[in-house]
Amino acid sequence: MTQSLHVPDLIQKKRDGGTHDAAELQALIQGYTAGQIPDYQVAAWLMAVYWRGMQPQETAALTQAMADSGDRLDLSSLPHTVDKHSTGGVGDKTSLVLTPMLAALGLTVAKMSGRGLAHTGGTIDKLESIPGWNPELSDEAFLRQAREVGLALVGQSRNLAPADGLLYALRDVTATVDCLPLIASSIMSKKLASGAQTIVLDVKVGAGAFMRTVEAGRELARAMVQIGQHAGRNVRAILTDMDTPLGHFAGNSLEVQEAIATLQGRGPADLHQLCVDLAVEALTAAGFPERARERAEATLQDGSALAKLRDFVAAQGGDPRSVDEPQRLDVAPDRSDLPAPAAGFLQAIDALSVGRAVLVLGGGRERKGEAIDHGVGVELLVKPGEAVTAGQPLVRLYHRGGRGLERARALLEAGLQIGEAAPAVPPLILDRVQ
Amino acid sequence: MTQSLHVPDLIQKKRDGGTHDAAELQALIQGYTAGQIPDYQVAAWLMAVYWRGMQPQETAALTQAMADSGDRLDLSSLPHTVDKHSTGGVGDKTSLVLTPMLAALGLTVAKMSGRGLAHTGGTIDKLESIPGWNPELSDEAFLRQAREVGLALVGQSRNLAPADGLLYALRDVTATVDCLPLIASSIMSKKLASGAQTIVLDVKVGAGAFMRTVEAGRELARAMVQIGQHAGRNVRAILTDMDTPLGHFAGNSLEVQEAIATLQGRGPADLHQLCVDLAVEALTAAGFPERARERAEATLQDGSALAKLRDFVAAQGGDPRSVDEPQRLDVAPDRSDLPAPAAGFLQAIDALSVGRAVLVLGGGRERKGEAIDHGVGVELLVKPGEAVTAGQPLVRLYHRGGRGLERARALLEAGLQIGEAAPAVPPLILDRVQ
Repeated sequence: MTQSLHVPDLIQKKRDGGTHDAAELQALIQGYTAGQIPDYQVAAWLMAVYWRGMQPQETAALTQAMADSGDRLDLSSLPHTVDKHSTGGVGDKTSLVLTPMLAALGLTVAKMSGRGLAHTGGTIDKLESIPGWNPELSDEAFLRQAREVGLALVGQSRNLAPADGLLYALRDVTATVDCLPLIASSIMSKKLASGAQTIVLDVKVGAGAFMRTVEAGRELARAMVQIGQHAGRNVRAILTDMDTPLGHFAGNSLEVQEAIATLQGRGPADLHQLCVDLAVEALTAAGFPERARERAEATLQDGSALAKLRDFVAAQGGDPRSVDEPQRLDVAPDRSDLPAPAAGFLQAIDALSVGRAVLVLGGGRERKGEAIDHGVGVELLVKPGEAVTAGQPLVRLYHRGGRGLERARALLEAGLQIGEAAPAVPPLILDRVQ
Repeated sequence: MTQSLHVPDLIQKKRDGGTHDAAELQALIQGYTAGQIPDYQVAAWLMAVYWRGMQPQETAALTQAMADSGDRLDLSSLPHTVDKHSTGGVGDKTSLVLTPMLAALGLTVAKMSGRGLAHTGGTIDKLESIPGWNPELSDEAFLRQAREVGLALVGQSRNLAPADGLLYALRDVTATVDCLPLIASSIMSKKLASGAQTIVLDVKVGAGAFMRTVEAGRELARAMVQIGQHAGRNVRAILTDMDTPLGHFAGNSLEVQEAIATLQGRGPADLHQLCVDLAVEALTAAGFPERARERAEATLQDGSALAKLRDFVAAQGGDPRSVDEPQRLDVAPDRSDLPAPAAGFLQAIDALSVGRAVLVLGGGRERKGEAIDHGVGVELLVKPGEAVTAGQPLVRLYHRGGRGLERARALLEAGLQIGEAAPAVPPLILDRVQ
């Protein structure tokens, strides 16, 4: 119920460092979503929030109001529902590995996922590398599959937290994006509306991430965990380094192949570790901490997580042979290697450059709705910290007839640094927040 | 010339405490006035300005940009042009006395004035108490009269500083009104566009004024003087107490009568003093400091200022007999006195209550364009600090057939305080800023 609200008074309250109550934030968000409160008043309020910040209970109430602004998925009929969110990364195929692991561990994943935009990939795009796989399910089929398989993933068809989309668009043009309570509420509003009881968060930290420092990432993680706890959800977060892309591959089909290898127990160490760690956090948050690491690890060794992926792909119309014979996936036939300009140690691979290279090769989209080429991508033949000889191939580009190749090579050349000394490589898992 | 401008970068610069250059502010104000920059971006920027403030040179550049947003009056053909601005007051008939004094002293007043709104009166409304007086002059007649008489006053027909109106309306609904550089630039943008070489400012301070404390008033005065100096104008300001209305009368015809009495050398002490002080500031600012006080005083004793008023009224079609026989002006015939509820000392008269009383009697307007009754008003029979006996009349209401009388009496009763001890009455002139 929208209360009678004098918006300038509310802006003034935040401007002067005051604390909003839940009713004020509900009225503001409802009025804005309904088009009754104009952009200019919300813009002034956002800048006041940027200035004065928000108390934890305020951020929680704002998030609830945003989650209440549209549909809410009702997952209450499903046991042990769990959702996962990453603050964005390049070559981040974690969801493809983690969600079947969680299903194999007895949890239920009934999740909406997004498509990629600009240099960031999306889980739905990656899954569409699998012939026949369909991101659209009726509500009934979605819930039934989640109950029977333990895993259902669909595109964002519902009107979840529309206030978030409106606020984000306004923040983007009013220099109010980079504000902790607004970032935390934006992420968590969609998670709350998505209905899962347990939420694990992967907060990326590094030069290529939204949070540049461990301290900033820890603050964001704490804010999101607090929001979830205020809303009665089980939430845990881990902070991970994303100066370097995860695994060796970026690009849709290539990442599915790497995810399958990981589900076969022979994935790259960083991806393997991250998925096990996130599964441990999810099990612990959901109330099953006993032997969590051992059990999570087992799903990658005994084929149980791979079997869940196969069942999930088949249930949504995909060809299950793609799971057992991932070489069937369409990978672009043309290759081009980038050699090391000198001997030394690979210092860093800029994740953003890798993401942009995949984009210009045709594997991503600049604008919503654009078609993409699932087969193109980038393989990191060497990872930071490794020694290289002059002329040794560092990166392999999978392209289609040279499309975007020169620009992609230039981007990657700029993003690779060779140095004389072995660099300090940060650990993948930087911290945990609960 | 509007520069290519990425508005979010500009908002971010101010958000992070940066200093705008003149080109940025010109582009922002021009783009906003032209409708090319949306309200929401300017609203976020205004809140960032509220937070971070502005350097003096920024405020000056903002004001120039606002002054450049519409027409500018070209008074360069007139000698020693002078303008006066008051930050608003009740019963403030200063302009009616001061402007003929300045003309009598050899300066030129070619000025646009406003009408009253809500509890604040306007000089044009007051002058329209004089039968026949016309606030509309062609540009040619306006300049000729200013040259020949030394005094021309017209209504605000020109499109002066339209950016100010747009920004003010936006500030009003985004809790960004109460911000010193924005207040100063709002006032001074119109003054700069109005073209006078010398500007004297009367900054009101007190419970009923926008600036509550002497310190706040002094800061505003300094900001406005600096803006004027950056623009190459001669500017001086005085800070005056406005806890109590000036003189004894509030209401249009009544204030004209009191102004004429002051021009005859027999006005109330506070009004007389303020007009002489403002004339001294104007003479000094304009470069004629010699014997300024003596010469200003003389215009009220030798009839020279009164003669200027007479010539001015006649030149704009008014009946000059109103100036020599002010009892000819239409004053409402019905009277009602408010008695002192107890013996003691009058502590204070709330200026806002007096202004609202005139409004409800019919002497002001709630909305632009409403007709008003020039004859109604309020007479303060006693001023703060004076001793009164129980039942002694404190205030006389001039009403027309009882219209609004009960509400006006209630407003005044609430605004008058009687106490046992003589109160400390602050001096009228609190400070000078140059």
